[in-house]
Amino acid sequence: MKKTREILVTNDDGFRAKGIHVLAGMLREYGNVTVVAPYEPQSGRSVSLTLDKPLMIERPLVEEATETLGSLRVYTLSGTPADCAKLGINIFLHENRLPDLLVSGINHGSNASAASIYSGTLGATVEGTLYDIPSIGFSINTHDENPDFEGVLFYGRQILDNVLRDGLRKNVYLNVNFPAIPKDQIRGIRMARQGAGRWVREFDHRVTLRGKHYFWMVGEFEDEEAVGAPDADHHVVDSGYISIVPHRIDTTDYEEMERLQKLWHFDS
Amino acid sequence: MKKTREILVTNDDGFRAKGIHVLAGMLREYGNVTVVAPYEPQSGRSVSLTLDKPLMIERPLVEEATETLGSLRVYTLSGTPADCAKLGINIFLHENRLPDLLVSGINHGSNASAASIYSGTLGATVEGTLYDIPSIGFSINTHDENPDFEGVLFYGRQILDNVLRDGLRKNVYLNVNFPAIPKDQIRGIRMARQGAGRWVREFDHRVTLRGKHYFWMVGEFEDEEAVGAPDADHHVVDSGYISIVPHRIDTTDYEEMERLQKLWHFDS
Repeated sequence: MKKTREILVTNDDGFRAKGIHVLAGMLREYGNVTVVAPYEPQSGRSVSLTLDKPLMIERPLVEEATETLGSLRVYTLSGTPADCAKLGINIFLHENRLPDLLVSGINHGSNASAASIYSGTLGATVEGTLYDIPSIGFSINTHDENPDFEGVLFYGRQILDNVLRDGLRKNVYLNVNFPAIPKDQIRGIRMARQGAGRWVREFDHRVTLRGKHYFWMVGEFEDEEAVGAPDADHHVVDSGYISIVPHRIDTTDYEEMERLQKLWHFDS
Repeated sequence: MKKTREILVTNDDGFRAKGIHVLAGMLREYGNVTVVAPYEPQSGRSVSLTLDKPLMIERPLVEEATETLGSLRVYTLSGTPADCAKLGINIFLHENRLPDLLVSGINHGSNASAASIYSGTLGATVEGTLYDIPSIGFSINTHDENPDFEGVLFYGRQILDNVLRDGLRKNVYLNVNFPAIPKDQIRGIRMARQGAGRWVREFDHRVTLRGKHYFWMVGEFEDEEAVGAPDADHHVVDSGYISIVPHRIDTTDYEEMERLQKLWHFDS
């Protein structure tokens, strides 16, 4: 008998977000789903871990099994997405197995270009990748709390089917960004690279009535790609396609390593 | 007249840590130093940003200028290392300039191998790199609060001299790890790659008297390199050398991108 597929799901918008509910529902067609989601929103947490505070867990909020879909269990954790992924993996290890797949999202907001650097959604996929679990982040390009997920459901399944059939190269995870447009307007799916860009003018400076200075982080995205650069992920999404970027956890720049090796000589 | 070099310094151990004091002192030989350091320790924060809370700043704790060394000013911020780097860069931008160099550290604890993924020290260098500022993280392989920094001072200067002379490739930052051994025992400096490894058995599970479950993150490092792999950064440090790894902020895996582009075809 074929073992039921085990899927670990997390996100960075927290367990209340619509995106993770849609994702968990979609993934139950693929197997048993274990959700370990942050109790509070955790946007911008990157691969941050919580080392200096205890991680409070709520034991399953939901535990259900049906005839037609995979089982579902839902935990919440007072931590980051990477904490959630680590803890979820350890729940499975405690049961003497590993998840067959980790999916993080569906993030409300783009994780294309420089957003991928700060993304908590992708922080969780980094963690899955360290455990050699095929790991994918799904994001939709809107902060709307209740976006149209039809395109994600339709095309997301095709992406999942491909990953489950072919696997991913060791140490690589996928960052998938969906345009926030109706399914019928989506033009297709494209492999892409992490587009170049950064945030500038990030701070709104304020002063309290007691004279304390503080800042809220805001910022405007500054695109560093040539107009229409066809393979930069944020441009791919802007032109109505779904972008898939394979990211690596080994971030060594091997060319620069060789260049500096030849160039630099040190005294001892 | 040559403009004095401007250097931005931060860390993830917080402004009280010995490492940043030693670093700021060393860098004053190279120019004017502006420190923007976290108020509280921020280990494991990766490239995390604070989007959901105000960032409280303490205006200069220290402001001094001497005849023989560069000036020094020190701010503290209630945020992460990446927040500190961003805010520091914005202080400079407000003065219509950019720092010529960003140095983060000296971290108390290794940032070699998988630690580089979680490192707040390197989170700050990522931020500097996004602004095209040559950025370096310095770490020493011990959590001792008062380690012997003689080797860092001696060899760190050589590394700084090289970076200031040759620059770094765009989108690349350096992760420098020093062994925690006396200067005379350090065998030299080696270019290296991010070594493969991960943490396992990460959680210490406890239960409160009220029956709440919680975890402290701990974990043991599991080395995934062959014994003695000569270019993995954590092995380089373990064998008595200083490791320098150039890391990239574009983490696209271009080979996997091309492979999947040929392999996958989607319906629309």
